[in-house]
Amino acid sequence: SKRLEDRVVGIGSKTMKLGKDDPRRIVHSFKVGLALSLVCIFYYFKPVYDSYGDSAIWAVLTVVVVFEFSVGATLGKCINRGFATLLAGALGIGAHELATLAGEKGEPIILSVLVFLLATAATFSRFFPRIKARYDYGVVVFILTFSLVSVSGYRVDEILEVAHQRLSTVAIGGMICVVVSIMVCPVWAGEDLHKLVAFNIEKIADFLEGFGGEYFAREGDGESTVASKSDKSFLKGYKSALNSRALEESLANFAQWEPFHGHFMFHHPWNQYLKIGALTRQCAYQVEALNIYVNSDIQVPEEFKKKIQEACTNMSLETGMALRELASGIRTMTQDHATNIHVSNSKSAAENLKTNLMTTALPAYTDLTRIIPAATVS
Amino acid sequence: SKRLEDRVVGIGSKTMKLGKDDPRRIVHSFKVGLALSLVCIFYYFKPVYDSYGDSAIWAVLTVVVVFEFSVGATLGKCINRGFATLLAGALGIGAHELATLAGEKGEPIILSVLVFLLATAATFSRFFPRIKARYDYGVVVFILTFSLVSVSGYRVDEILEVAHQRLSTVAIGGMICVVVSIMVCPVWAGEDLHKLVAFNIEKIADFLEGFGGEYFAREGDGESTVASKSDKSFLKGYKSALNSRALEESLANFAQWEPFHGHFMFHHPWNQYLKIGALTRQCAYQVEALNIYVNSDIQVPEEFKKKIQEACTNMSLETGMALRELASGIRTMTQDHATNIHVSNSKSAAENLKTNLMTTALPAYTDLTRIIPAATVS
Repeated sequence: SKRLEDRVVGIGSKTMKLGKDDPRRIVHSFKVGLALSLVCIFYYFKPVYDSYGDSAIWAVLTVVVVFEFSVGATLGKCINRGFATLLAGALGIGAHELATLAGEKGEPIILSVLVFLLATAATFSRFFPRIKARYDYGVVVFILTFSLVSVSGYRVDEILEVAHQRLSTVAIGGMICVVVSIMVCPVWAGEDLHKLVAFNIEKIADFLEGFGGEYFAREGDGESTVASKSDKSFLKGYKSALNSRALEESLANFAQWEPFHGHFMFHHPWNQYLKIGALTRQCAYQVEALNIYVNSDIQVPEEFKKKIQEACTNMSLETGMALRELASGIRTMTQDHATNIHVSNSKSAAENLKTNLMTTALPAYTDLTRIIPAATVS
Repeated sequence: SKRLEDRVVGIGSKTMKLGKDDPRRIVHSFKVGLALSLVCIFYYFKPVYDSYGDSAIWAVLTVVVVFEFSVGATLGKCINRGFATLLAGALGIGAHELATLAGEKGEPIILSVLVFLLATAATFSRFFPRIKARYDYGVVVFILTFSLVSVSGYRVDEILEVAHQRLSTVAIGGMICVVVSIMVCPVWAGEDLHKLVAFNIEKIADFLEGFGGEYFAREGDGESTVASKSDKSFLKGYKSALNSRALEESLANFAQWEPFHGHFMFHHPWNQYLKIGALTRQCAYQVEALNIYVNSDIQVPEEFKKKIQEACTNMSLETGMALRELASGIRTMTQDHATNIHVSNSKSAAENLKTNLMTTALPAYTDLTRIIPAATVS
C-alpha cells in the first residue's frame, strides 16, 4: 500500500506539473467537457430528439472528434468535415442511383467496386504532402461518408431525408465546438507560433551570451566553476530549437485557418515564420556542435586559449545580443536598429579574432551571417 | 486549356513520383479499398444486415478510422478501440443506472454532469506524454462511447442488446483490418525503424567519406571542381537525419504493438533504436555545422590548408568507414570488429592532426567519440 500511495502521489505531482507548465491545458479540458455537456443537454430536449432521431449521435461524435487544442485546428477540422460530408454525400447518392440501374443482383457488386475505387484513390491522395498537411481529416471523412451513404440500403428519397438530418446535426456539433473554442479563453495557434519562434531565438541568445564566460571560466579557479555550474540551465535552453520543426509546421498549418485576432490578420504571412524557424534551427545546430565540442575532453593549450579569450567572448556576447534584439523585434513586430550595431560589433570582434588566429569559435560567426536574412524577413 | 493540361500532367508526374519513391503506398491504398469493400460485401448479406441493423455502420467506421499504413499502427488502434469501447460501455451503463435513480427530472442533469466530469478528466489525461504516445486514440474512443451510451436514452436491457451488437460489428471491422494489414504485403513499423536508423548512419558516412575530397579539391584545378559538383547529392543525404526524431519515435511506438515477424521478437528492444537515433542526430548536427562552415566564404590560408589536408581527409574517411561498418552491423544484426580498426585509424589520424595544429575538423573527431557508445548499444 506504500507503493500504491507513492504512485498516486507521483501521478498527482505529474498532473500538477502538466497544469502548471501550461494552464491552458486545464482550461482546454474543461472546454471539451463543456462542449460535450452542451450537446448532451441539447439532445435531451424532446423536440430535438424526436425530429433528429438516431442521427443526433453524430453531433456527439462531431464534438469528440473535432474539438482540438487551438482555434485553428478546430476550425480546420470543422471546415474539412463539412465540405467532405457534402461532397461525399452527393457522390454517394450518385453511386446509389447508378447501382440501382444494375438491378437487384448487380447492385452490391457495383457498389463494392465503386467503394473500392474511391477509397483507393482517396487513400492514395493522403500521401501528397500538401493534402496530408491541410486536408487529411477531410479525406478520411470523405471515405467514411461515401461508404456509409452508398452502402446504407435506403431509397434515394430516404437518403435525402437522412442526409439533411445528419448534416444539420453535424453542423450543430461543429457550431458548438467553434463557439466554445473561440469564446472561452481561445488558444490561437498563430500566437503560439509567433511566441515559439521568438522563444527559440532567445534561448540561443541565452546560450551565446553565457557561453564565453562558461567556456573560459572552466579552467580558472575552482570556486567560479562551481558557481557557474549551479545555474547552467541557460546552456540547455537552446535544445528546444533543435526539434521544433514538426511543431512549427503544424502550428503554421492551424494558423492558416484562423480568422483575424489580436495583431494578426487572416492572411498573416505564417510561412515566413517557418523560414525564420529554419534559420533558427541552423543556428541551433551550430550551437549544439559548439556545445558538444566544449563538453568534450579536448585539451587546448592554455596560452592559445588566453589569446583568443577576449575576442571570442566579445563575439559570442554580441551575437547573443543581436539575436535577443531580433527576438524582441519579432515579439513586438517592429524593426530595431540596435540589432545592426550588435551585428557589426560582433563582426569586428570576429575580424579581430581572425587576425590573431581563428577557427574555434568560427561556427558562431557563420551563425551570425546566416541569421541576418531573418531580420530582413521579419 | 494549356494551363489545365500542364496542371494535369504535373499532378500525374507527382503521383508517379510518390508511387515510385515508395511502392508500398500504392499497395496500402489498394488494401484500404479491399478492406472497405469486404466490409460492404459482408454488410450486404441479408442475415447480417437484419440482425446487426444500423450498428453495422460501425464496422465501416472502424475500418476507415483504424486502418493505418503499418501493421503496428493498425493493431495499436484496434486494441485501443476495443478496450476503450468495453470500458466506456460498462461505465456508461453504470452512469445510466445512477441517473435513473434521480427520477425523470434529475436524469439529464446528472448525466450531463457525469459526461462533463469524465470528458474533462479524460481530455486532460491526453496531455500526459506517455498516454499521448500510446493510448491517445483509446481515450478519444472512450469519451465518445461513454457520451453515446449515457445519452442514448435506452433502457438498460436495450443498452446491453445494442452494446453487444456494436461490439461485434466493431470486432468484425477490426478483424478485417488486421487480417488485410498482415496478410497483404504487410508493412512492419519495426522493420522500417530498423532500416531508417541504419540509413541515417550511412548517409552521414557518405558525407564524411566524400567530405575530405570535396573540401580540399574546391580550390584546386577548375576541372575537378566541376566533376565533384555534378554528383554532390551524397553531401546532402545526411540532412534527413536532422529531423528524423518525430518519425523514429512514432515508428518505435507502432513497433511495440507488433507481434513476432522476420528477425524481430515481440519484445525487441525498440527503445535502443531511439538511443542510436539520438546519437546519430548528434553526429548530423556536427556534420551540418561542418557543412555550413565549408559552404561559407571564410578564407583559410592556403599553406595552412595544405598542412592539415592529409590528416583531415584521412580522419574524415576513416570516421565515415567506421560509421558505415556500424550501419551494416545494425542492418545484419551482427557485431563487427572492422569498426574498431577504423575507429583507431581515425583516432590516430586525429592525433596526428592535433600535433600539427588543429580545430578545423575537430567537430568530426568529437563526433566519433560520441558514436562509439552506439556500437556497444547495438
